[in-house]
Amino acid sequence: MNLKYLKEAVYEANMEIPKQKLAIYTFGNVSAIDRTEGVIAIKPSGIPYSDLKVEDIVLVDLDNRVVEANAKRPSSDTKTHVLLYRNFDTIGGICHTHSTYAVAWAQAMRPIPNLGTTHADHLIPSVPVTEVMSDEMIKGDYEHETGNQILDLFKRENLSPEEVEMVLVACHGPFTWGKTAEKAVYNAGVLEELAKMAFLTLQINPLTPPIKQALMDKHYFRKHGAGAYYGQGC
Amino acid sequence: MNLKYLKEAVYEANMEIPKQKLAIYTFGNVSAIDRTEGVIAIKPSGIPYSDLKVEDIVLVDLDNRVVEANAKRPSSDTKTHVLLYRNFDTIGGICHTHSTYAVAWAQAMRPIPNLGTTHADHLIPSVPVTEVMSDEMIKGDYEHETGNQILDLFKRENLSPEEVEMVLVACHGPFTWGKTAEKAVYNAGVLEELAKMAFLTLQINPLTPPIKQALMDKHYFRKHGAGAYYGQGC
Amino acid sequence: MNLKYLKEAVYEANMEIPKQKLAIYTFGNVSAIDRTEGVIAIKPSGIPYSDLKVEDIVLVDLDNRVVEANAKRPSSDTKTHVLLYRNFDTIGGICHTHSTYAVAWAQAMRPIPNLGTTHADHLIPSVPVTEVMSDEMIKGDYEHETGNQILDLFKRENLSPEEVEMVLVACHGPFTWGKTAEKAVYNAGVLEELAKMAFLTLQINPLTPPIKQALMDKHYFRKHGAGAYYGQGC
Amino acid sequence: MNLKYLKEAVYEANMEIPKQKLAIYTFGNVSAIDRTEGVIAIKPSGIPYSDLKVEDIVLVDLDNRVVEANAKRPSSDTKTHVLLYRNFDTIGGICHTHSTYAVAWAQAMRPIPNLGTTHADHLIPSVPVTEVMSDEMIKGDYEHETGNQILDLFKRENLSPEEVEMVLVACHGPFTWGKTAEKAVYNAGVLEELAKMAFLTLQINPLTPPIKQALMDKHYFRKHGAGAYYGQGC
Repeated sequence: MNLKYLKEAVYEANMEIPKQKLAIYTFGNVSAIDRTEGVIAIKPSGIPYSDLKVEDIVLVDLDNRVVEANAKRPSSDTKTHVLLYRNFDTIGGICHTHSTYAVAWAQAMRPIPNLGTTHADHLIPSVPVTEVMSDEMIKGDYEHETGNQILDLFKRENLSPEEVEMVLVACHGPFTWGKTAEKAVYNAGVLEELAKMAFLTLQINPLTPPIKQALMDKHYFRKHGAGAYYGQGC
Repeated sequence: MNLKYLKEAVYEANMEIPKQKLAIYTFGNVSAIDRTEGVIAIKPSGIPYSDLKVEDIVLVDLDNRVVEANAKRPSSDTKTHVLLYRNFDTIGGICHTHSTYAVAWAQAMRPIPNLGTTHADHLIPSVPVTEVMSDEMIKGDYEHETGNQILDLFKRENLSPEEVEMVLVACHGPFTWGKTAEKAVYNAGVLEELAKMAFLTLQINPLTPPIKQALMDKHYFRKHGAGAYYGQGC
Repeated sequence: MNLKYLKEAVYEANMEIPKQKLAIYTFGNVSAIDRTEGVIAIKPSGIPYSDLKVEDIVLVDLDNRVVEANAKRPSSDTKTHVLLYRNFDTIGGICHTHSTYAVAWAQAMRPIPNLGTTHADHLIPSVPVTEVMSDEMIKGDYEHETGNQILDLFKRENLSPEEVEMVLVACHGPFTWGKTAEKAVYNAGVLEELAKMAFLTLQINPLTPPIKQALMDKHYFRKHGAGAYYGQGC
Repeated sequence: MNLKYLKEAVYEANMEIPKQKLAIYTFGNVSAIDRTEGVIAIKPSGIPYSDLKVEDIVLVDLDNRVVEANAKRPSSDTKTHVLLYRNFDTIGGICHTHSTYAVAWAQAMRPIPNLGTTHADHLIPSVPVTEVMSDEMIKGDYEHETGNQILDLFKRENLSPEEVEMVLVACHGPFTWGKTAEKAVYNAGVLEELAKMAFLTLQINPLTPPIKQALMDKHYFRKHGAGAYYGQGC
């Protein structure tokens, strides 16, 4: 089992967090999964980005167990990542940040409405926000329950993790994902920009409605699915 | 037909978008036209600025056809650029960004009022905003219709594309232009600053009126037209 | 008495202020104490960060007296630092900045409520704000009285300086502290981020309540105390 | 007459404008005066900061006449600078920027109230804002009249240009000054920070009152006048 490639990809994706200013100090973490091996690579807990090295990346299995000797302790959010990998079959990477505007929407417990084509280029629905967790869940297996809150939300609102690659955990902050760790952190950057644009739009006109369905569909399907014609087609 | 100079100018102008923080990732695009050859150079679709090279720039004609073999696919917004070049005779470059504050005004569907001399140094009217597109237009030839929305707005409001080198497409974002690609992206930077200043001004005093006509004229004609005395006169 | 190590630590911590954009020009200052020697190292008064050198750092004792010949004049806020060291036994470093959002809350004379897990990761209560000083105190031993305002607040609200490592001085700005100078300036960066997140949250939803006690406790004790499981356990 | 030192100081001060992000592109300008020679050095009109060279700096006299052959055209705001030098005897440098938050207050035509010690460290009164100019003044000798608006304001409000080194020109933006060009642009940076802090403070609590007189006096006189004890005393 040589998962150096996975550690490198996860290292590079984690380093995008400070580069894109999506969190300060040690906040945030990115992981990726090798589904053949059933192994996840994730940022170690509490290491500043400026000190992080490829060999610090921790490998865990789908039962949250560290699988190498002498490894660092994995991110305290590991169980949230693992539960999402177990339930969202098609995703290959997950990113959690404390980016400022996305956190503000999460703290305000408000979904981010689809107010323009920058949003529609990436998803059609509002960026959804979970329920506030019960005291029982918080005092129980907290990080596992954080994952459950996300799964419950996607089930309740009938959302697809392939069509909606981002979520706000109420009172906490954003999780994003994608086919790769690189795409997961890209989505974290997109989400922060959507959060800022929506914030400013509603400051200018608090009554701004969501854009019309036809425009949502046009921009989303310009970039996604069989009829997509954005990009170089590869 | 040696249009290397045009590709280089368009490459440089596109690279100003991330440098001036006018869009993240692959968002935005700049083009320029050689009117003698009837050829437009434009950014390829979906290539991140960090990967962009001069030779990636795509040449298209005024019928939206790629004119070199083995070219990349041009920006998905190409038809909007082409229609503007066909109808705005005097412009040489066009820039489209998703800059944050300009997008917020576009999403709020509000023109940006002329609240100060920074605005009047560049244009006298409000930065205009198009109508929301009909479902038929969206489902039809969308990018061509985006150009039509801009043309209709300039006709309806009797605006000159030489005097107003910027527009907000409702629910989407800004397009700017100028004699060159360099000037088009300069105008995109100016527009973002005007959008931010107007936003903050109306947060401080929501009842701030537009500045008086005499002041608009003074600042505009200090920089434009026969009586201009700003700059080095070249 | 060789306190070069202390000067170096204080120099490095001061240089974090401009690096993290926590103040402009000469604003702000960081100190650290060697409790065995009873000596405090602090930034000299009015020196821009770009000119600051290790040897400029000033050593003072717990009676506010400079203890080296030919020293620079210490920060005008020295007496505030000294009083805090005398009363908060367990702290090793103090940081004062004029970071923009924290100053705004201090000027608005409003405590920063605990609206999310980024806050709860660092402290459970609101970031407290002192009373406005009386004219007598201002005209008296002002910087000493600034320290007294902080001490009175912590006594009145029964706050522990180990559990709440930050405070807003009304009409002025933030002071933060920690076991080391490095931790003190880290807390200044955290406070600025909390101040910005809370600002934005209340702009989105002015009625956002503080998070529930169970969530505060979960995040705080995940990182602090005997049951902590964040970080590498060292 | 060898004024190379003056050109160099003015060049350096102008380059602080983009470095401190106080204006984009060609906006803004700094000048300095040699009172013995009666000569002012000022930025040329319309040259981007990235292209500016020491030898581009223009020398003019107190009658607005360029005093060297083959000089560039001086800033279009030159007459405003000259009038201020003629009337404010003790100033040695002037800076004009279009910094975003200061412009927003100028456009909103609101003085910036003294809401905290960052403000009081630099001046006691609100940052004053001029009257809106009459059409006659605008259509007349506009840049000279801009200076007159500032002089009238200082006379009407009985302000001293040594105690208040900054002003907002209504609908336009800030002018700042000081003993040197370096101090003038320093004050432009301070003003932008005060403008942002006051903006945020009033967003948090729109009813925030100015700070008490005793606190204003304490902070101002800690740094200014015979009893000052901030800085290294040189």
